[in-house]
Amino acid sequence: MNLLESTRAFEGTLRRYQHDSETTHCSMVFSLYLPPKAHQQKQKVPVLYWLSGLTCSDENARTKAGILQYAAQYGLAIIFPDTSPRGENVPDEVDRYDLGQGAGFYLNATTSPWNQHYQMYDYIVKELPTLIADFFPILTEKKSIFGHSMGGHGALICALRNPQQYQSVSAFAPICHPLKSPWGQTCFKTYLGENKADWNAYDATDLVSKGAKLIHILIDQGDADEFYRDGQLLTEDFQQACQKAKQPLELRIQAGYDHSYYFISTFIGDHLAYHAKALKTHD
Amino acid sequence: MNLLESTRAFEGTLRRYQHDSETTHCSMVFSLYLPPKAHQQKQKVPVLYWLSGLTCSDENARTKAGILQYAAQYGLAIIFPDTSPRGENVPDEVDRYDLGQGAGFYLNATTSPWNQHYQMYDYIVKELPTLIADFFPILTEKKSIFGHSMGGHGALICALRNPQQYQSVSAFAPICHPLKSPWGQTCFKTYLGENKADWNAYDATDLVSKGAKLIHILIDQGDADEFYRDGQLLTEDFQQACQKAKQPLELRIQAGYDHSYYFISTFIGDHLAYHAKALKTHD
Repeated sequence: MNLLESTRAFEGTLRRYQHDSETTHCSMVFSLYLPPKAHQQKQKVPVLYWLSGLTCSDENARTKAGILQYAAQYGLAIIFPDTSPRGENVPDEVDRYDLGQGAGFYLNATTSPWNQHYQMYDYIVKELPTLIADFFPILTEKKSIFGHSMGGHGALICALRNPQQYQSVSAFAPICHPLKSPWGQTCFKTYLGENKADWNAYDATDLVSKGAKLIHILIDQGDADEFYRDGQLLTEDFQQACQKAKQPLELRIQAGYDHSYYFISTFIGDHLAYHAKALKTHD
Repeated sequence: MNLLESTRAFEGTLRRYQHDSETTHCSMVFSLYLPPKAHQQKQKVPVLYWLSGLTCSDENARTKAGILQYAAQYGLAIIFPDTSPRGENVPDEVDRYDLGQGAGFYLNATTSPWNQHYQMYDYIVKELPTLIADFFPILTEKKSIFGHSMGGHGALICALRNPQQYQSVSAFAPICHPLKSPWGQTCFKTYLGENKADWNAYDATDLVSKGAKLIHILIDQGDADEFYRDGQLLTEDFQQACQKAKQPLELRIQAGYDHSYYFISTFIGDHLAYHAKALKTHD
């Protein structure tokens, strides 16, 4: 691993690393925040993964979401992965923001040429946690996950498919039912092929309908969010699936809020408190 | 005035406006945050001006500084002006980040061709406050100012030259003595000409040395700041001038912090509390 940047923030340290991934077969970059507890007192801390949305890299949330203040307060490490494999040799659709680099959708692609590099599900669920545990003062059994939009959905599927691995999950304005939304259908068709039966394992609503179960899920959704209004997110589909399956869900519709990081920063403190409680940081 | 954007944040509203400036003779853009108290209860609130640094626009601090959370908490409106006049007809040095557009230095230029548009001092001190008072629920007698780097210096000179107009002033990593620093000398020579006697009115250290006085000044400075280490900021010159002139100054050297918005966001809560106290918001 190569350290690219290191910056002090809230008495902890924010770093950016590059490493060669065995899963995505390319160079990957992620950012990491270590709270003062880990940075100064060298104690092991729980870890919270943030998955970003379409067009984002590891840098958006660390800059704009207001997460670090609460990570310092609760003594949580935060991992900010990238949203896709990247590089000259990685397939892309340069004219599209919703496909290719920056739009990995946190799944394992099966169709050529995407399948060589677009293995973000395994990267997030398997490779990155192992790497993090090897290099940083992390309590490996205390891990939670959250995210925004495409990354909110990524958090939901990672947790729903690995309930023992994540202590808690939350999401801001997640794409909830990609099987039925334009963004999801575009990506799933491209990355997974025409057979829709292969799509189900990466759809949060379908996973809940088919019996995947978590202790609890927290979702914040702004009612002035253009993508919510345009049917990209299909939040109510997920809500109904949870009701039918008796999956505990706290869905908070926030009046007047849009899809932006201003919305996220307004409620990020609630989400950090939620995960801190599940991770029993006692800070 | 034209409303360009409006976004809900922390139960208040963040807006972006364009207007034709009589002072800078071009179209100007600024952002404005109205806290819930002003937005929902339509009460008049105190106002705090944030001046940004080199290369910034009105957007950097609103996005990255973590100000809005505290503005909502204390019931303060925040004004984010641009850092210079802009546009095709506005002179610029496109290859330089420290001169021309994005680098107005909050002074009134006197040399051609800069003097037609680069009148940022009058814009910040006179035109913008009048405009704000005309259009928004602002307590006109309750106004404070702060900023970062070039904008930290801008805040200092605006307050030192107009002690009755601002209730309080603070700065993050301000350029403290532009008469003596490379950035300052470049801009002052270009905007104000060769006669150094004309530069003094825009130098915070010189203003304090010559008798300008404020009730108190708060400055945060990171000791890992490359520009502090490279002699661009000359913080100690200002500190010594304040000591000689018995100007109350709280200079906090923050160990390990650099010049970035991560540094600002770490201590922004202290600055908002400082200004809220001076502005007696009682919230």
